[in-house]
Amino acid sequence: MKISILGTGMVGRTIAQKLLSLGHDIVMGTRDPAETLTRNEPDNWGNPGFADWHKANSAIKLVPFGETADGADLVINALSGHGTLVGLEAVGAENLAGKILIDISNPLDFSNGFPPSLFVSNTDSLGEQVQRALPETRVVKTLNTVNANLMVEPKALADGDHSMCVAGNDETAKAEVAEFLKEQFGWTDVIDLGDITTARGTEAVLLWWVRLWGSLQNPMFAFKIVR
Amino acid sequence: MKISILGTGMVGRTIAQKLLSLGHDIVMGTRDPAETLTRNEPDNWGNPGFADWHKANSAIKLVPFGETADGADLVINALSGHGTLVGLEAVGAENLAGKILIDISNPLDFSNGFPPSLFVSNTDSLGEQVQRALPETRVVKTLNTVNANLMVEPKALADGDHSMCVAGNDETAKAEVAEFLKEQFGWTDVIDLGDITTARGTEAVLLWWVRLWGSLQNPMFAFKIVR
Repeated sequence: MKISILGTGMVGRTIAQKLLSLGHDIVMGTRDPAETLTRNEPDNWGNPGFADWHKANSAIKLVPFGETADGADLVINALSGHGTLVGLEAVGAENLAGKILIDISNPLDFSNGFPPSLFVSNTDSLGEQVQRALPETRVVKTLNTVNANLMVEPKALADGDHSMCVAGNDETAKAEVAEFLKEQFGWTDVIDLGDITTARGTEAVLLWWVRLWGSLQNPMFAFKIVR
Repeated sequence: MKISILGTGMVGRTIAQKLLSLGHDIVMGTRDPAETLTRNEPDNWGNPGFADWHKANSAIKLVPFGETADGADLVINALSGHGTLVGLEAVGAENLAGKILIDISNPLDFSNGFPPSLFVSNTDSLGEQVQRALPETRVVKTLNTVNANLMVEPKALADGDHSMCVAGNDETAKAEVAEFLKEQFGWTDVIDLGDITTARGTEAVLLWWVRLWGSLQNPMFAFKIVR
């Protein structure tokens, strides 16, 4: 498949690398590719700058947002919460019309430090804002409740014995994404939570996730819906 | 132990019945005991009115809020979210000073129907509001992420292989409550999430819980923190 990924941070890179290793044709979208390729500084967590990472993953094509969706069979939003609506606007609603968009973004607000709060929650969600901004796009909210490594390698923890939800208005798109998560990444328990408003549930989980991370001192955990 | 329970709804009844069966001395607090004992109507879910329930559980003493904490070794708040601060005020901050209060309440707002939103969330929590209202009380937020039956019988689901968090400012109180959950109810995985502000995490889970209930069509599920 030709898969386009928005965002060049750790989530975007981890997904890009995994899907490339599975033989897919991967494009990454960013605001200014030339500028992104000058980034050599490691981030706050010691991850390499994008330029160094890209040298080791040069089969991945870096393009401006406006070209990201061209010919894509699937688009994945791995932008930060704050960057999501701006980035998707730059990709262009018309370019995303009819396509499936996997939305992983979380509306994290770090303006008061750690743990973050959410800049939209409770009676609305970022997933809904994305769907409203892209009315012709088949938005499916998923993967946002685990860290990047677990998104693409759920079996790295407890042999994958944990759960992932999908939320979205398009039943076919949700079924295709659930299948994609199982076949490409190895998820086994994918729960259809309901329409895109149910993203209020999975985004709110981040308020728990960040505190569990603080308590467990390790981000390699996941939620199993025992039933 | 002498255990006092605030609230005569399903959560309060389920906990009272379980603790009575374990040999504890149980008091239930309500606004007006005489009025509560006239309630014969089943609720919206078909549960019996309080009067009928109490006939079968007459060893449980019903008292007005103001007497609820008298001599109690442990107080459990099983009031509704909206009833919590009003109820606790009626019990009296001075009567609760120094005591451990297990707070199970969730700030559910059903004013726009189902699924409910939360009337406090994200940057504050009902647990914190309770602690602020009762500065001398050792508030421990817990049990609010599962339905009443699972609170007291976690082993009824997957032999208890799921997780419960405790949140609170008093380390000794949290440790005592964790021990209580294990010894009395059979919980095995109790996670100390941190101070009372971490109730923002476990109360936010309700936004997920209500939608999982909608999707799974069954409230007998629980969260296992796989790690």
